[in-house]
Amino acid sequence: MLAALELFEERGYELTTVIEIAERAGLTKSTFFRHFPDKREVLFGGDAMAGLLADGIASAPPEATPFEAVAHALAAVGREAFTATRREFVARRRAVIASNPELREREALKGLGLTASMTGALKRRGVPDLTACVAAELGALAMTIAYDRWSDPANGDDFGAVARRTLSDLRAAGALA
Amino acid sequence: MLAALELFEERGYELTTVIEIAERAGLTKSTFFRHFPDKREVLFGGDAMAGLLADGIASAPPEATPFEAVAHALAAVGREAFTATRREFVARRRAVIASNPELREREALKGLGLTASMTGALKRRGVPDLTACVAAELGALAMTIAYDRWSDPANGDDFGAVARRTLSDLRAAGALA
Repeated sequence: MLAALELFEERGYELTTVIEIAERAGLTKSTFFRHFPDKREVLFGGDAMAGLLADGIASAPPEATPFEAVAHALAAVGREAFTATRREFVARRRAVIASNPELREREALKGLGLTASMTGALKRRGVPDLTACVAAELGALAMTIAYDRWSDPANGDDFGAVARRTLSDLRAAGALA
Repeated sequence: MLAALELFEERGYELTTVIEIAERAGLTKSTFFRHFPDKREVLFGGDAMAGLLADGIASAPPEATPFEAVAHALAAVGREAFTATRREFVARRRAVIASNPELREREALKGLGLTASMTGALKRRGVPDLTACVAAELGALAMTIAYDRWSDPANGDDFGAVARRTLSDLRAAGALA
């Protein structure tokens, strides 16, 4: 949420109150808490990313391998969330999270949620449990590394393409380990 | 810390105060905060596990592959932390963490710390970056799954042996994905 991000940048996460965020966003306090259970959550958008990844895996072609299904989901993230126009917002959000331990904790838990969401979606395609776990775990790792690569302004590629290359680099690296 | 675990079990994490934990453990409040920056941390023991994993990787034989070095570290965890006599404590601690969102967040962040610690230790052995990332990520996943398998009272094997088998199951699963 942009209003919250601006306030966190201006005066820091700790010193910003929920009331101030609600005011800047034009929401009442009760509406705020209906959308966000706590102050941390304004930077995380609930389970939207987890849903995007699960849908992306579910809608991969039936013949896709587990890794191809994960790449299909990461391409959807590139189209819906990590788009060229959102690159700057995404980078600012990330800097705020990196600067605060509470936000880093919330992000860590969200990360586990993304992996669990991908694991579940793969199992629903009939992928065996351990294979689903490995593909989801490497998918989450690819998402993090691809995000770093994509954030570099020198990199003009879209997120989905970067993520697909990263996933295939990780598979090759794992085979040699 | 056993005193804190007992209190969390008796009255819940939320309702237990730092003063009560310090009293039951025979510590002053200031000593408590010297050891633990906050209430959550009493169940996590700082960076001990991260250090154990890094040392285990560093002390693996020079010719060990990245995955063998990770298995070597998980065997050390079995000798030093997840021992037969600590199995009950470890299971109780885990139930308390599972029941509280704040503790789950802290555990998620600690999990990222373990992966980062293994990645760093592998790089210091000269393992290339992406290979180190994959081996550490699958090592952390193996640790979680092996912990589940080992927690089953029907399983008489030691943690290190369970973890080694799990790691090799994960590699095989990844190769097929």
